[in-house]
Amino acid sequence: MKIEHPYLMFLGDAPDELAAKTAIGIKQWRPEWCVAQLSLPGCQADLGLPEMSIAEAKAAGVKTIVLGVANRGGIIGPAWMETLLAAIDAGMDIANGLHTRLSTIPELVQAANAKGVKLFDVRHFDGKLPVGNGEKRPGKRVLAVGTDCSVGKMYTALALDAEMKKRGMKSTFRATGQTGIFIAGEGISVDAVISDFISGAVETIAPANEPDHWDVVEGQGSLFHASFAGVSMGLIHGSQPDAIIVCHEPTRTHMRGLPGYKLPDLKTTMDVNLMHARLTNPDCVVAGFAINTKSLDDAAAKKLLAEVEAEFGLPCVDPVRTGVASIVDKLQEI
Amino acid sequence: MKIEHPYLMFLGDAPDELAAKTAIGIKQWRPEWCVAQLSLPGCQADLGLPEMSIAEAKAAGVKTIVLGVANRGGIIGPAWMETLLAAIDAGMDIANGLHTRLSTIPELVQAANAKGVKLFDVRHFDGKLPVGNGEKRPGKRVLAVGTDCSVGKMYTALALDAEMKKRGMKSTFRATGQTGIFIAGEGISVDAVISDFISGAVETIAPANEPDHWDVVEGQGSLFHASFAGVSMGLIHGSQPDAIIVCHEPTRTHMRGLPGYKLPDLKTTMDVNLMHARLTNPDCVVAGFAINTKSLDDAAAKKLLAEVEAEFGLPCVDPVRTGVASIVDKLQEI
Repeated sequence: MKIEHPYLMFLGDAPDELAAKTAIGIKQWRPEWCVAQLSLPGCQADLGLPEMSIAEAKAAGVKTIVLGVANRGGIIGPAWMETLLAAIDAGMDIANGLHTRLSTIPELVQAANAKGVKLFDVRHFDGKLPVGNGEKRPGKRVLAVGTDCSVGKMYTALALDAEMKKRGMKSTFRATGQTGIFIAGEGISVDAVISDFISGAVETIAPANEPDHWDVVEGQGSLFHASFAGVSMGLIHGSQPDAIIVCHEPTRTHMRGLPGYKLPDLKTTMDVNLMHARLTNPDCVVAGFAINTKSLDDAAAKKLLAEVEAEFGLPCVDPVRTGVASIVDKLQEI
Repeated sequence: MKIEHPYLMFLGDAPDELAAKTAIGIKQWRPEWCVAQLSLPGCQADLGLPEMSIAEAKAAGVKTIVLGVANRGGIIGPAWMETLLAAIDAGMDIANGLHTRLSTIPELVQAANAKGVKLFDVRHFDGKLPVGNGEKRPGKRVLAVGTDCSVGKMYTALALDAEMKKRGMKSTFRATGQTGIFIAGEGISVDAVISDFISGAVETIAPANEPDHWDVVEGQGSLFHASFAGVSMGLIHGSQPDAIIVCHEPTRTHMRGLPGYKLPDLKTTMDVNLMHARLTNPDCVVAGFAINTKSLDDAAAKKLLAEVEAEFGLPCVDPVRTGVASIVDKLQEI
């Protein structure tokens, strides 16, 4: 899927800022693609963009209306339908981050077909994929892995890609989850593919490239997560990383969604990910650590980052607090 | 899915014995369910069962016609349709092991709906599954893992289940692939589920049970297979094994389908599987090795099994040549 920009960010009747988390992430990383927002009565989220009607957004050049909000029960109700049908009528594509598929709403499908516009359900994947072949392909790849889900892997990957571009390096962020796909404009929700094709999906989205080009692959889950480790495993094998970055959130008391499970330590996370990465790329190295220190004060954060650097002799950053320059320095040595 | 037996084994126009591999496996493990076979002109496979027409099979009590053959191009052609429609008309369910889905053939779907019979596409899974929760559940579980795909994991699991039943132990074979599903009459092709739900699928098919009951879970793939390791990982976490059995084929020169990849050694296979198994069951142990020695003569086979036993201090069997009694002895100590 290739989602055309610029975007009109549909906020619907989002009950709070958290419900618009995906939209906020898109705005943060692709402000130049987000020309306006459209809210319905009762909306409690705000991206700080100009509020536009469908007609105004169309006149401003919008190609796609983006559903980057969570709603109650995942249902696309009558209040939304009017706006979505108007967007289709104006010739916009719709890109949808909800679990509910646009493709299961006949009224939208018919309207989209009649108008010749596209409906993207980015949390799903229905296309054909190859089984992973494990064959070494040219180009360099770095993959964000984690002690747990939601520890900053996407943010880290985006920060690496931005830093590389700033230095004039050739790089592409490769999205493997819904927010990442909106930000990249393309990608595959790897956790939504049939399990036989996980590594094949990653081989597809991070294909052969120029020898000095970096694919920065967004990670998913964790090899230590009892629900999702299979996804993480396929991602590691499919991306054939030249380098992995270990991501972590230091205040988490248990694995996300699994109260009985403690987080692995950084050493174990590093060793086990590296072992599996070396199956498809024997030269893979750990290029650093990215720690989300949001819950720590500045002194505690700096102390932690310094301690990890000293323990492993590798760069340790918080992408928000310190940037990722020291990790990109390390990657440039590869 | 719950497939009713007895079965009529449909051999179609199978070009050779290999094309009927699934049917042969079913006949071998569930001879009492396989009352007859039905061949079409040109069929080169033979299960040694009475040849029956649909009408004769119906009279003999058949509940399900089983498509346990591979055909050219995966297409269900006119020659097959006549038989399948007759089976539906006779009130039989159809269980299909081909990649092609019966559910995509409108003529069959309409006939089945009209008659109220079921169509099973065992290589696929369209139902709802939970995300794996990793919560410890009662009952004991043993999982077959492997150095590679197709090294005898299903055969080993079936042999363990048979030996346990012979001893009066409570056990159930849990199928995770198509041939296993025909043999068990139920199960889920784990490699066909959406990757977010791999471990949840296994939690579903091997649920809480009596404390002295053994689920013998069929393994899939290998943690060392660059195409399919994600499936194997989810299987390990979802089955929460109390014991794993390491399966191997000693003459294989490279990983199945991956000419550039060597097989891992037994020690590495054991250690890495055990490490991941202990995430969801910290008490997991290795209970033995199952080696497919078909390509070796008797002396070489015995020598190899004895060497592995000596190296690891654990039972090492060939399920075909020696049976699996010594592994079940070990499991009874758990």
